[in-house]
Amino acid sequence: LARDLAIDYPVVGLDDDALAAAHLLVERHLPGLVVMDGDWRPMTVLPGSQVVRFLVPGYVQDDPALARVVDEMHADRLCASLSGKRVSDLLPHEAPVLPVVGAGDTALEIAAVMAQAHSPLVAVVSEDGGTGGQLLGVVTASRLLERLLTK
Amino acid sequence: LARDLAIDYPVVGLDDDALAAAHLLVERHLPGLVVMDGDWRPMTVLPGSQVVRFLVPGYVQDDPALARVVDEMHADRLCASLSGKRVSDLLPHEAPVLPVVGAGDTALEIAAVMAQAHSPLVAVVSEDGGTGGQLLGVVTASRLLERLLTK
Repeated sequence: LARDLAIDYPVVGLDDDALAAAHLLVERHLPGLVVMDGDWRPMTVLPGSQVVRFLVPGYVQDDPALARVVDEMHADRLCASLSGKRVSDLLPHEAPVLPVVGAGDTALEIAAVMAQAHSPLVAVVSEDGGTGGQLLGVVTASRLLERLLTK
Repeated sequence: LARDLAIDYPVVGLDDDALAAAHLLVERHLPGLVVMDGDWRPMTVLPGSQVVRFLVPGYVQDDPALARVVDEMHADRLCASLSGKRVSDLLPHEAPVLPVVGAGDTALEIAAVMAQAHSPLVAVVSEDGGTGGQLLGVVTASRLLERLLTK
């Protein structure tokens, strides 16, 4: 069941500091962070590649060949591009919805939800209330495969 | 430089056994595998969610609500759905291209390539020859962020 498959995963809020979120990604060596909405419900994933995208100057994004002629950037300048920004500023305009399942859902239900959403993660919430539940963790594709292929 | 940022990452060939690839994902707890083409050049990433997708029966994909009324599936049946299949059978029809950089490319060049491709990984190949080079490893977004934010 989903509650048994859920693993702890770092989350950030929409209003959290963007630089702190970037450092969290680095410290945990993760491909992304779970983003919680204003009601602290799982909402989307902030991929590390999106943070990288934010750090690349606009003129280099327009013409990647320019990266070759630009000196290695200084960390202070890159940090500056994140300073004062929030997680919501880093999200793409059409951030993919993070699919959510209940604690009692089966592995096949999680698989169906993950397959339909093409999502690398599925959030698991508790079902004890009408307010949407509390985040218990996430199920990764590899964890789900492990369960599906060995039981 | 790219050669210093590259980490070892498991790769599979297009003709490799699909079930073995699924087990590799599980063992390494990775979100995906690098897929090499017929000339053993990095080609795309096989995401774990795509393998999960392959395991979900068609009628459940068409109507995920059915997952609720289906018994937990047996591993032998799921393994059967992968048996005889190859990695190429698991790839989506429009598999995203895995971007490639040379060993001497700078962090900013890698960032520009990752940003443009919206890719979680960038492959690093050696530059000692005209045949496309050998895969030295991959650069992840978190590793690149670490480099960009601390140097």
